[in-house]
Amino acid sequence: MMLQGKIIRSVLAAAGIMLVAAAGLPRPKVQRIGMVIGLKADKIEEYKSLHAGTNPGVRDLLRKYHIRNFSIYLRQFDDGGYYLFGYYEYMGSDYKTDLENLAEEERNLKWLTVTDPMQVPFSGEKGWALMPEIYHND
Amino acid sequence: MMLQGKIIRSVLAAAGIMLVAAAGLPRPKVQRIGMVIGLKADKIEEYKSLHAGTNPGVRDLLRKYHIRNFSIYLRQFDDGGYYLFGYYEYMGSDYKTDLENLAEEERNLKWLTVTDPMQVPFSGEKGWALMPEIYHND
Repeated sequence: MMLQGKIIRSVLAAAGIMLVAAAGLPRPKVQRIGMVIGLKADKIEEYKSLHAGTNPGVRDLLRKYHIRNFSIYLRQFDDGGYYLFGYYEYMGSDYKTDLENLAEEERNLKWLTVTDPMQVPFSGEKGWALMPEIYHND
Repeated sequence: MMLQGKIIRSVLAAAGIMLVAAAGLPRPKVQRIGMVIGLKADKIEEYKSLHAGTNPGVRDLLRKYHIRNFSIYLRQFDDGGYYLFGYYEYMGSDYKTDLENLAEEERNLKWLTVTDPMQVPFSGEKGWALMPEIYHND
């Protein structure tokens, strides 16, 4: 039983190292996206309801295509206009294909027919405008 | 040796379950912060240099006070103005105290004397304006 105990302790120690390594690993490589768009003042409450935690919306589809940790913020600017800022992390391995497949999902298309008319794209944009990242600190 | 093999396999299986559990755990509870501020057009390049990955800046202090996954995005709006959007995750357990302690750090105070004059706070704000989160999907 001495030897067994020693072996078990060794295996447990190795497992412990693995656990520490797993916990201490940097997060998987992600692509961070920041984007902005206007929001019509008379659509604020409806937009907020659609995006409330109680509405499933297209949350499952975003996850299906590896779009995670997605937040949207809303703020009135000094010009009186309302702007939405979106932030998400892409955790998959083929961003282009995933976005194309998401764009073809029936429920996503339907969702956009509801939300698109509430938004005010920037000049020259059809939807959310990408914002270049100028700083990142893990 | 049969019994030892069986025990080792059991321990390894348990370690495997622990590893899966560790990998599959939701991220620790975080507080997500979204904020916005203007940036003076003639300070863009200097601001970008200060925030480049090559400049240590106050990156270590942010981490010290549990401010993680911090990104800043920059975009010109249709009114011609430039705006910075900041996003970070607070991973500590006492946000108020951590922010107060960060605010008292000598190097942070010095950093702000450089960056503050480049920024244009919103009306009624002294620095970054918080943006309420209206959507989140993990």
